[in-house]
Amino acid sequence: MAININSGMSTALQVIEALGIVAFASSGFIEARRKEMDLIGVFTVAFITAFGGGTLRDILLDRRPLFWVQHQEYTLLIFALALVVLPLSHYLRSSSAERAINFADALGLGLFSAAGTSIAQEMQMPIFICVMMGVITAIFGGVLRDVICNEIPLVFRRGQLYATCAFIGSWVYLILNLANVHQTIALISSILATTILRLLAVRFDLKLPA
Amino acid sequence: MAININSGMSTALQVIEALGIVAFASSGFIEARRKEMDLIGVFTVAFITAFGGGTLRDILLDRRPLFWVQHQEYTLLIFALALVVLPLSHYLRSSSAERAINFADALGLGLFSAAGTSIAQEMQMPIFICVMMGVITAIFGGVLRDVICNEIPLVFRRGQLYATCAFIGSWVYLILNLANVHQTIALISSILATTILRLLAVRFDLKLPA
Amino acid sequence: MAININSGMSTALQVIEALGIVAFASSGFIEARRKEMDLIGVFTVAFITAFGGGTLRDILLDRRPLFWVQHQEYTLLIFALALVVLPLSHYLRSSSAERAINFADALGLGLFSAAGTSIAQEMQMPIFICVMMGVITAIFGGVLRDVICNEIPLVFRRGQLYATCAFIGSWVYLILNLANVHQTIALISSILATTILRLLAVRFDLKLPA
Repeated sequence: MAININSGMSTALQVIEALGIVAFASSGFIEARRKEMDLIGVFTVAFITAFGGGTLRDILLDRRPLFWVQHQEYTLLIFALALVVLPLSHYLRSSSAERAINFADALGLGLFSAAGTSIAQEMQMPIFICVMMGVITAIFGGVLRDVICNEIPLVFRRGQLYATCAFIGSWVYLILNLANVHQTIALISSILATTILRLLAVRFDLKLPA
Repeated sequence: MAININSGMSTALQVIEALGIVAFASSGFIEARRKEMDLIGVFTVAFITAFGGGTLRDILLDRRPLFWVQHQEYTLLIFALALVVLPLSHYLRSSSAERAINFADALGLGLFSAAGTSIAQEMQMPIFICVMMGVITAIFGGVLRDVICNEIPLVFRRGQLYATCAFIGSWVYLILNLANVHQTIALISSILATTILRLLAVRFDLKLPA
Repeated sequence: MAININSGMSTALQVIEALGIVAFASSGFIEARRKEMDLIGVFTVAFITAFGGGTLRDILLDRRPLFWVQHQEYTLLIFALALVVLPLSHYLRSSSAERAINFADALGLGLFSAAGTSIAQEMQMPIFICVMMGVITAIFGGVLRDVICNEIPLVFRRGQLYATCAFIGSWVYLILNLANVHQTIALISSILATTILRLLAVRFDLKLPA
């Protein structure tokens, strides 16, 4: 209960945020290793990927302290994660690394899209702004990761559905919420919608019309 | 009057901001279509181009809610604009698209430079800061558009006068304002100065000395 | 004393901040001249390099007015500096320009890392956040400079120690501070640690393991 009151966030939301950080940080670790960056480079990319979207959301909504300043344990989480992911990433072949990044990225997309939408909505933002905050939270970390690693951002690459998935997942949360569905169920439905749609988009090369 | 009091902005300034959004969003639509982005990509680029400069200005000056959070109609404006611009953009040949982007961009440059300078000045910022806010508001959206579309930003390309136009237009507003000229006239003079100078710079390849 | 009270910053810290601005602005001037940008381009790059890191720090910590809005003399400092650096830069050969940039950048890295760490610590931020603010303040301006000039950022290039130096210098300050060493001595030690380590890294091609 204390967590609930102090942070103004439900426990479900905090778990989701932490899982999103793990997913995006993992994608950052693997991507930076592929680019043969040194240890500090790898950490920097992992941090930026995990914290970039939420930081922009907090700045746009003027939420302070920032979520990673308030929750120092998130920083420690990334250090701990490095001890697990970095040794494993040595054994990843190129094709597996690509798949691992895609999966971690799809999961992070779902988790952060749900978290961002829900946070904006708890601040009583208008509904369009909630959707935009969901999408921004979900995609901005990955955009920064790709720009730093000198890749064309996934979100703009070959047009496979990406931001669209976060967009749809964000609406799933808002609609279920309007229908008075319990928050935890709305969050999980939103995460599943985004993540599964993104994985299908990669698998079957789903694209929007140009 | 209610608008005036609630928003702390004159009606003239709001009209200018809305027109600037239309101009920059149009340039974003056309640019993104040229790059054969999908629908979400096209929208994202249009949003970022239209809102990027004002968002950075609002963050730097700590104005909240951000102008596009406060005025949700701006978001709807871009959706409405898409219904007009996107079908038309199919009929644009490459050379016409280039010209259309240049014109929309020059107009947006003038409108946002005047709006940014005026907003900073109403917050009683020192005069140098007002000029910098005018320039930042004017150029930052276009810089983001070009970076996303993988072009060298117009502002740094071949040195044709660009930021310089916004810089001069910003001073035009401040000087007329000091001379007690009516705000609306000062705004329009500033817009015309920036836009015409930019169009001349493109037409006659005007450059600063290196 | 008045300065002390008004700004909430020690005189030592202000001197360091001003020197850091001179160092980074110089590196920006030289880099932009090498790219044959026009005068406005050169200024813009110098400003962004000098103010980028501190601006991001102030935004993340929600400090307003921003340091360069509060201290307009910093803007004038860059104009004055241009009168000295720009004519000189004509006489720089390519190899000398490279060396001059590296030295100015190493010095700026040390100065801003110490300043950023110290500012976060005076705001009673947790110790990890202080270190991150030191590193962000130190590296972000240079990252923006390199991105604008279309170079791979120094911080990610060939893995020579870069962010690592700011990281270590930041800890030097915090540890000396915990040991109750006088602030000015802690600041100078931190600056020397970062700058010398960075210069050694460039000279002897020091790298972290991949």
